[in-house]
Order: sequence, then structure tokens, then C-alpha cells
Amino acid sequence: MKKVKIFITLKEGVLDPQGKAVQEALQANGFPDVAETRVGKYIEMTLPDEADVALEVQRMCDKLLANPVMEEYSYTVEEGIRS
Amino acid sequence: MKKVKIFITLKEGVLDPQGKAVQEALQANGFPDVAETRVGKYIEMTLPDEADVALEVQRMCDKLLANPVMEEYSYTVEEGIRS
Repeated sequence: MKKVKIFITLKEGVLDPQGKAVQEALQANGFPDVAETRVGKYIEMTLPDEADVALEVQRMCDKLLANPVMEEYSYTVEEGIRS
Repeated sequence: MKKVKIFITLKEGVLDPQGKAVQEALQANGFPDVAETRVGKYIEMTLPDEADVALEVQRMCDKLLANPVMEEYSYTVEEGIRS
């Protein structure tokens, strides 16, 4: 099996109220040096060894997981995972 | 600056209704091979070069970002980021 980790964040320039709220909460609670905070979605899954991960991730994100207008995605793959 | 990426997921054994819902949606929309889907939070931020990232991340997660009873976290660090 392959373990795929997908990270979905808002595109640069898109207002990130959640990121702003988290940053302000951190700064108000003893973490004054935190900056440029952005919050996104993290989706982990397994796919069969023969899967074309790049194609599958692109299709999944385009179709369901990410809003192509406002969001961008990146991913990592771990091979040879025993489920 | 250092760019810190924090991944917060539910601990093994904790029911993940969101992960289940995403998996079922993917399987019903042309991705039958997707398995073991888990959904979590992804938080990205910058910290000063001199920051003790391991300590800061642990304190931030324990204090604000993660529920220690149900969630676990991991993180990556990129050094020398120009903000």
C-alpha cells in the first residue's frame, strides 16, 4: 500500500480568517513571535501499490477535496506501507 | 525565519467521522481504492531563527492547537525562510 498525505491550503492572497484567528490566539497566549499563520486541511489515506498517485491526487482534489478557485494542494507519498 | 508545518490528527482508535465521510464520498465518486482515510488540521507558521521549534510546537499544541486526549501532532521545519 502507499500512504498519501494531502495538504490543502488557501492560495496566497486569499484572506485566511481562520489563520488570523489562530495567530492572534497564539500571540495572546504566550507565543508573540508566531507569524504568517495559515490553517488548512490535512487528509491522509492509503492507495494500492499500483496506483498512479499524482494522477489520483489531482483528480481527487479537483473533483472533491479542494476548491480550485481558492485552494491549492500538495502531497507526500510513503511507499510499501502494510495496512 | 523558520517555516513550521504542524499536522494534527486524531489518535489511532478514536472514531473519525470526518475521515469516514470523506472516504465514502471518494469511493462513491470514482475512487474505489481509497482506504484508511483520516482527516486532520494543518497549521503553517513562521518562527524566528533562534526559536526552539520542538519546545514551541509542543507548548502551542498542548496549550491551544491540539486536544491532548484525542489528538496527536507531528511537524516539519524549513530553515532559512525569507518572509
